[in-house]
Amino acid sequence: MTDRDPAATRPAYFVSDSTGVTAETLGSALLANFPGIRFSKQTIPFVASESEARTVAASIAADAAEGREPLLFITVKQAALRGILSASKATVIDLLAGHLTELEQALGVTASEQLGVYHGLGDTDRYFARMRAVEYAIEHDDGQSYRALDQADVVIVAPSRCGKTPTTMYLALQHGLRVANYPLTEDDLPAEGLPRSIAKYRDRCFGLTTTPLRLSQVRHERRPGSQYASLEQCTLELRRAEDLYRRNRVPFLNSSTKSVEEMSAVIMQTMKLRA
Amino acid sequence: MTDRDPAATRPAYFVSDSTGVTAETLGSALLANFPGIRFSKQTIPFVASESEARTVAASIAADAAEGREPLLFITVKQAALRGILSASKATVIDLLAGHLTELEQALGVTASEQLGVYHGLGDTDRYFARMRAVEYAIEHDDGQSYRALDQADVVIVAPSRCGKTPTTMYLALQHGLRVANYPLTEDDLPAEGLPRSIAKYRDRCFGLTTTPLRLSQVRHERRPGSQYASLEQCTLELRRAEDLYRRNRVPFLNSSTKSVEEMSAVIMQTMKLRA
Repeated sequence: MTDRDPAATRPAYFVSDSTGVTAETLGSALLANFPGIRFSKQTIPFVASESEARTVAASIAADAAEGREPLLFITVKQAALRGILSASKATVIDLLAGHLTELEQALGVTASEQLGVYHGLGDTDRYFARMRAVEYAIEHDDGQSYRALDQADVVIVAPSRCGKTPTTMYLALQHGLRVANYPLTEDDLPAEGLPRSIAKYRDRCFGLTTTPLRLSQVRHERRPGSQYASLEQCTLELRRAEDLYRRNRVPFLNSSTKSVEEMSAVIMQTMKLRA
Repeated sequence: MTDRDPAATRPAYFVSDSTGVTAETLGSALLANFPGIRFSKQTIPFVASESEARTVAASIAADAAEGREPLLFITVKQAALRGILSASKATVIDLLAGHLTELEQALGVTASEQLGVYHGLGDTDRYFARMRAVEYAIEHDDGQSYRALDQADVVIVAPSRCGKTPTTMYLALQHGLRVANYPLTEDDLPAEGLPRSIAKYRDRCFGLTTTPLRLSQVRHERRPGSQYASLEQCTLELRRAEDLYRRNRVPFLNSSTKSVEEMSAVIMQTMKLRA
């Protein structure tokens, strides 16, 4: 898990006693503020013993001996392991310990040493709801099934290749929401109203659009040189889809400049959904 | 986005100038260390103006006036907005600012005020690779397609309902890995070797197993009272699957006690995959 050209980069270690998801996510968010520096990132999950912590420290010492000045982001609960890592030859950014102390003071209780495995099974009801939401999303991907559409928290509507599927999966996996998605076809688009199978769920519909150029590029990847991928066809479908959204007061978003995380946050906010 | 019984809980706000993913993830990880306290969590994304920050502060003031002592986790880059939020009547846990200062000192440069939108499109190549990985995962879900199996970074193998699909989606969406999955059927299980369509990818295979009881429960949800869901059938299939993994030196994992995040981290570590 190291980059190809380590000599030109600054080592950044994300070390965790659990999955490393938190260390990697927040560490990367912090490093994104320093666009002028290249980092060689390495995530080391499940560091749970002193010998494993010492192995990490040895790797850091080797980097430091080459003059590469490593950074070390840690989310490790055991004080003994934090001690070994903090004594390593890196700049140590402890993502949990300081904030835990602040919280202990605010809440007037001591943090549990047992629990706090946020990325573990944790609240199993919530966990299995997320897993069921993923299955629901797959069953309802691209209008495959209109059974159980009444169970959908949201129905994402868009012409083919506007980003419905990844957004659907993200909302399911991250937030446990039941998301169906419906592909607007040419047959649907000249009509005034929403397609019949989703019309009665209008207040749960959220539309996506994109730019004609972007859509044409994405469609050419799938079916090079097709009428389906032509700029004219894409322009026409997007214009009609946007008209359909407006006429039916379906909120919509342009996916060409937004990530799935951003789109998901907007959709949840607009539709007043909670995880 | 508030809990149902706010009076019994302590308000925890996750406030961000972007999606709120980081604030919510790390904030929740921190709160998980205080299992004795119930929190009513509220994520407020896209707080980008002083008036929006003041609206949040007013909501916090209303909680505080009721004696509910709110917590406020923030990931907000603009100093003016941080100032408004920090002056609110909450215990403020600033998840970025302190660490950014540490990093500025270590790196000897000032953090960019422009960039750092980690959950935005960011590195678009990487972003579109993640989106393509989601499509690849859907096309190869449950052995649907053996085309392009040679492009898989990993092939997850398991009997039906052992957790292949959510793990596959997580690896694709979070890490941009191309993951195929293959359902072991009864026909596959008495054999010595791996099923023909995946045999030549043995070194990319990773197996899942679970406990017979858990598998039986999950299968009963899908097909109540069926032979497929019976404890005997589940016990038999799992024993044979584990034998198959061992005989073919396919690493494997029990999914009954691990989250998709944990399984994904183990799979990446075992198969030496990087995002």
